[in-house]
Amino acid sequence: MVCGGILENLILKCLAKLRESIDILVFPLHTDSNMVNAGDMNGSGNLMDFLDEPFPDVGTYEDFHTIDWLREKSRDTDRHRKITSKSKESIWEFIKSLLDAWSGWVVMLLIGLLAGTLAGVIDLAVDWMTDLKEGVCLSAFWYSHEQCCWTSNETTFDDRDKCPLWQKWSELLVSQSEGASAYILNYFLYIMWALCFAFLAVSLVRVFAPYACGSGIPEIKTILSGFIIRGYLGKWTLLIKTVTLVLVVSSGLSLGKEGPLVHVACCCGNFFSSLFSKYSKNEGKRREVLSAAAAAGVSVAFGAPIGGVLFSLEEVSYYFPLKTLWRSFFAALVAAFTLRSINPFGNSRLVLFYVEYHTPWYMAELFPFILLGVFGGLWGTLFIRCNIAWCRRRKTTRLGKYPVLEVIVITAITAIIAYPNPYTRRSTSELISELFNDCGALESSQLCDYINDPNMTRPVDDIPDRPAGPGVYTAMWQLALALVFKIVITIFTFGMKIPSGLFIPSMAVGAMAGRMVGIGVEQLAYHHHDWIIFRNWCRPGADCVTPGLYAMVGAAACLGGVTRMTVSLVVIMFELTGGLEYIVPLMAAAVTSKWVADAFGKEGIYEAHIHLNGYPFLDVKDEFTHRTLATDVMRPRRGEAPLSVLTQDSMTVEDVETLIKETDYNGFPVVVSKDSERLIGFAQRRELILAIKNARQRQDGVVSNSIVYFTEDPPELPPNSPHPLKLRRILNLSPFTVTDHTPMETVVDIFRKLGLRQCLVTRSGRLLGIITKKDVLRHMAQMANQDPESIMFN
Amino acid sequence: MVCGGILENLILKCLAKLRESIDILVFPLHTDSNMVNAGDMNGSGNLMDFLDEPFPDVGTYEDFHTIDWLREKSRDTDRHRKITSKSKESIWEFIKSLLDAWSGWVVMLLIGLLAGTLAGVIDLAVDWMTDLKEGVCLSAFWYSHEQCCWTSNETTFDDRDKCPLWQKWSELLVSQSEGASAYILNYFLYIMWALCFAFLAVSLVRVFAPYACGSGIPEIKTILSGFIIRGYLGKWTLLIKTVTLVLVVSSGLSLGKEGPLVHVACCCGNFFSSLFSKYSKNEGKRREVLSAAAAAGVSVAFGAPIGGVLFSLEEVSYYFPLKTLWRSFFAALVAAFTLRSINPFGNSRLVLFYVEYHTPWYMAELFPFILLGVFGGLWGTLFIRCNIAWCRRRKTTRLGKYPVLEVIVITAITAIIAYPNPYTRRSTSELISELFNDCGALESSQLCDYINDPNMTRPVDDIPDRPAGPGVYTAMWQLALALVFKIVITIFTFGMKIPSGLFIPSMAVGAMAGRMVGIGVEQLAYHHHDWIIFRNWCRPGADCVTPGLYAMVGAAACLGGVTRMTVSLVVIMFELTGGLEYIVPLMAAAVTSKWVADAFGKEGIYEAHIHLNGYPFLDVKDEFTHRTLATDVMRPRRGEAPLSVLTQDSMTVEDVETLIKETDYNGFPVVVSKDSERLIGFAQRRELILAIKNARQRQDGVVSNSIVYFTEDPPELPPNSPHPLKLRRILNLSPFTVTDHTPMETVVDIFRKLGLRQCLVTRSGRLLGIITKKDVLRHMAQMANQDPESIMFN
Repeated sequence: MVCGGILENLILKCLAKLRESIDILVFPLHTDSNMVNAGDMNGSGNLMDFLDEPFPDVGTYEDFHTIDWLREKSRDTDRHRKITSKSKESIWEFIKSLLDAWSGWVVMLLIGLLAGTLAGVIDLAVDWMTDLKEGVCLSAFWYSHEQCCWTSNETTFDDRDKCPLWQKWSELLVSQSEGASAYILNYFLYIMWALCFAFLAVSLVRVFAPYACGSGIPEIKTILSGFIIRGYLGKWTLLIKTVTLVLVVSSGLSLGKEGPLVHVACCCGNFFSSLFSKYSKNEGKRREVLSAAAAAGVSVAFGAPIGGVLFSLEEVSYYFPLKTLWRSFFAALVAAFTLRSINPFGNSRLVLFYVEYHTPWYMAELFPFILLGVFGGLWGTLFIRCNIAWCRRRKTTRLGKYPVLEVIVITAITAIIAYPNPYTRRSTSELISELFNDCGALESSQLCDYINDPNMTRPVDDIPDRPAGPGVYTAMWQLALALVFKIVITIFTFGMKIPSGLFIPSMAVGAMAGRMVGIGVEQLAYHHHDWIIFRNWCRPGADCVTPGLYAMVGAAACLGGVTRMTVSLVVIMFELTGGLEYIVPLMAAAVTSKWVADAFGKEGIYEAHIHLNGYPFLDVKDEFTHRTLATDVMRPRRGEAPLSVLTQDSMTVEDVETLIKETDYNGFPVVVSKDSERLIGFAQRRELILAIKNARQRQDGVVSNSIVYFTEDPPELPPNSPHPLKLRRILNLSPFTVTDHTPMETVVDIFRKLGLRQCLVTRSGRLLGIITKKDVLRHMAQMANQDPESIMFN
Repeated sequence: MVCGGILENLILKCLAKLRESIDILVFPLHTDSNMVNAGDMNGSGNLMDFLDEPFPDVGTYEDFHTIDWLREKSRDTDRHRKITSKSKESIWEFIKSLLDAWSGWVVMLLIGLLAGTLAGVIDLAVDWMTDLKEGVCLSAFWYSHEQCCWTSNETTFDDRDKCPLWQKWSELLVSQSEGASAYILNYFLYIMWALCFAFLAVSLVRVFAPYACGSGIPEIKTILSGFIIRGYLGKWTLLIKTVTLVLVVSSGLSLGKEGPLVHVACCCGNFFSSLFSKYSKNEGKRREVLSAAAAAGVSVAFGAPIGGVLFSLEEVSYYFPLKTLWRSFFAALVAAFTLRSINPFGNSRLVLFYVEYHTPWYMAELFPFILLGVFGGLWGTLFIRCNIAWCRRRKTTRLGKYPVLEVIVITAITAIIAYPNPYTRRSTSELISELFNDCGALESSQLCDYINDPNMTRPVDDIPDRPAGPGVYTAMWQLALALVFKIVITIFTFGMKIPSGLFIPSMAVGAMAGRMVGIGVEQLAYHHHDWIIFRNWCRPGADCVTPGLYAMVGAAACLGGVTRMTVSLVVIMFELTGGLEYIVPLMAAAVTSKWVADAFGKEGIYEAHIHLNGYPFLDVKDEFTHRTLATDVMRPRRGEAPLSVLTQDSMTVEDVETLIKETDYNGFPVVVSKDSERLIGFAQRRELILAIKNARQRQDGVVSNSIVYFTEDPPELPPNSPHPLKLRRILNLSPFTVTDHTPMETVVDIFRKLGLRQCLVTRSGRLLGIITKKDVLRHMAQMANQDPESIMFN
């Protein structure tokens, strides 16, 4: 342990130095290149024209704070209005306004191109490096196994494994290529490569971009709902996540690249939106771009553009206007076509798992499909509970202090157990692909080792059901072992400090279970075709059961159980098969799985991780049905100190400064006077500080004793009193108010739909208190019998 | 004219009598069977328990009024809360709560089944009646031409037209079946049948269900946005629209059944939601069902379930929570599968126009595709402008007084011009189907009359481009004439007092233009394959241009130009072809068409009709970018009489009654006193009337002199004064307020997102005025330089 720690430290320090130098080399201008919020950069520089211009810094937020959607929207309208009125002045301004109107499409195009390219590169690199664990291509070391054997055109497709140009490590390093010692050598090198990849990945993540770990979807959901996490979508995260994603997927860990691809696409979105001031300076508009980028991410992950858009709509996005729908669709299509023109799968297919089935399904099959749905729901519940418990343990115990060691250990265990079983040795997406496929006539896989009828002369597409051969039984055993292994190892893998997606492992679990059920039903139908349930549709010699379809249904069920996706899940699966034929089985399984999983707990894995991290996420799907009123939630509570307020014309600069110093609220309501407490407006903390600082520096006569006034005209002051400070400009004259009798369900609705940060509570004009988003979330947690303190950010 | 009027009146009177009797026979219990709002029925009956229970009538609205979404939502939460708390009491209550939770899915299932069945029946009936215009099947008169010739299996598919069992009218009525007199006889009977169908249709609509006319989509959009139009979705409308839809489509008028099918599906949705109190008593929940029903309608119209859901989301719906998305999808799928199992097209295809192309498209073809997009945009603009002008004329001049005559005249013109041209004589959807199809080897149509290469021995699927034969040139002429005719006649047809959809005529216009362009490009490429633009991809002997694809792109462009659909349009088209291959051409055309059309006017045909009718529809797509404040919009304006308000404890019953009688406002703000004007709450007119009426009848001591008080405790009164009337229960203590400084863009946003009816304007607690939805819409109209008085309803 100690030795590992020292070694780890040493290497990390070297890498940190390296990072610094790269940092300086690559990004010589911006030292804080990870910033989400580019608006910050021109903050202090523009203070010069403070008195003439609206505040330049108004649009910026602190890190780990919530944005105000209404304000962002109205700022964008202002900007738009300005451009429109300017565009009539000259042709140049008109062209500029046109460019501004088109910039949204340009950003989408760029995102689509980059996301598609990155996905293609990742696919190619993963292919090559996964095969590198087993051997190397002699003609060109950068060829994967498949590419290597393509070029040597002396082999047919059948004995792909025996192409002479591809050499296993044992063949290359020692003369003998068969036997126990060769096997052990290959085994050992397989583990070594895996450890090597995993160690490199976790080190890169730790040193260069800590945010590159995980799937990223929980954080992206939170960011899209209006939260600021600086650097989460930065350039470094983009770069490191792309590289480490290749490493971890190649290392054979039980994780997928689909979730992280969404994060990568969002990083692209953030990068391109920072090029256009329309998006870089408005957090609301930026989130529209990010929603579209998420759609592009799923689009390239599965080759399913429509499913991607619906995924973004259903699962990820918060504010999704129709314009974004259309643009998301565009970005998703561009990304999908870019990926197809790179053609990483070598078959010019758009989709990841293309399948074509030849037989319809029958009503009686709905029963096993629904069973698979139940399995998916149970798996989802089990996975979420265990994974969250393990992640909580990691957060709270010493375990969390050795992330590199953890990755190494899990990788070693994975590699050691995975190698002997052919279904876990290969990459998970290849496995899923094989499980989904129907047994054609030319299929050589073990899963298709059926006993052929000797009377059947030549293989046709429509092969009848046949009895299973010994290969199928072996495959069943191996699949069962692989299933248990996948279930256990995935729980420990997801959440480590490396990029890790959940889609592929979940689908693999479901596909394995589904294929086994499918083969079971098939054999049952073959051997007992006189049973009542089979008699109507499964005569001998008919091709009635398609085990591949069961695998697909199982995959959908398990994915649904973990993520609680519904429409987007079915649409993604529909795009994979390209036919409406199998939508009913998929829907039946998806719905069952969601219901079963929901019965044990409403949260999907992403919401569970959001809760675990205490992000302020106001889910649109949660229904608030309690009978509380605004007065029960607002601050101050009974017995608490009264609300910190500003008065409109009776406080001095010093009073205000003291108030700012003593409290950490984000803003203060302004009232007529402490006695009447009638609300005038709301002043942001940040703007107050800026305004006072600026006034003290540059406005003559403003001293600590100056009266701060928010009214239109200065108060009547005794002679010789210091020059007053007028701050009406920073006062928000239309703060959002509700009465103390407003039901909390309405308040929650308002917070959700308008994206507020805070809301003032009044009774016939008198200010009673304030409700912030954090208060709302804490109240909701309390009502759901959860710990309200788990909501950490504002 | 006069004679026509008398005849018309006579028949109408007879039909009205008939209607009454049917009314009594079919619906013996509810005389007001057309009501949208079933909650009304138990209004007066429940007044008994007025003092103990919350008002039974609270949830109902007047006809042509806007609902309050927030209130509907909170009423549903109350209901839900009650059921949940009751469900713990007994097993029966638990089962009831489960049934309640499942009722949403049951409604969706029923809607899907009924909508699918109706669509199938309509398809079959239209097929039969369209053929009835030309002839009759001798073996069974209820067979359509195609079905008739299927049963006589002596003919091959090729000479379908010559099957002996099918007899043209001329063959049946007179002995000779060829020659000029036979042609004239057929011509005459064709016109007579068409007139007969159209007259029957318009009479049925006028007498039984005036709301059954038009496409229904503008009204459904308005209803879904929260407007009440009683009877628009009633049972009579459902019945009559279904029947007359068959009649008008068969009559050969230039209209389609797709839009009306959405209306029919929504009627089904309204019917089934009235069976469950969860939906029948809550206008908000009812609208969720209607959104899903609209999706089911498009799903069966095109056989495109995903496109249907997106259409509902993009085009029709207003409030579309995720739960509705999922349920819409379910309803759309059930509807599609029901339709498929009825199998009206006889090919077990789900989609209306199934096409399969064998060749890819090339980059250079994007230019003609974009040209088609421009054409689509121009057609959209032309159609909307002319149609709206004509409809306005109909509304304002004497023309509108003869709806039956108008339909007869247009039908006669249509039939007379349509018969001689083979492309207009047949049904429009058959025409589109032929235009979309690629010329296969076996195609016998005139459009496929190419000159075959004599060296080519046998027909294969991949036929190279060939020179056009004389048939193609004839077809081009006929298509051009048909195009001009369709363009003109559709403008006059859409908006008559019969059910009429726009999708099919628009698609037909686009498909004709597209096919002509496609053939042009094909011949250009064949004859000039050495030109630079063709050289790279169109070598002689290659199959490089698919005219059918051009037709499809043209159809998408024209449909997009008229309706301004984007994503749903592309997805519907994608579902027709079933491949992502052609999405780029479709998108290019759809985007171009939308941009071109938007340049001439932002409104689609549905929005234009909504405006024409003055419905209060707050479009989510319109951006409000003006710099006005709430104070500019609120009532009372400067110089107007002060706002009519109630005071909390100083008005008598008589004062309140006078106020109610003298004004027609929907509600009154309640203030502390006329002097302070500090807002306490808001009281609905309807509830005030009910409460006072009830109190006068049943509460002792309440007389005209009684003080009405809204405070918690009665005001201190002099002795011997009459018993006061407490009305706090009907007071809404959380009225929505904004300050007078709130920018109108924020106010518009709040109205849109929260679905408010009105909003009070205050300044530091003092009531200044009120803004209603109508005020907002009038202000928006004014800002867009339109007539604010065109907004007629509240």
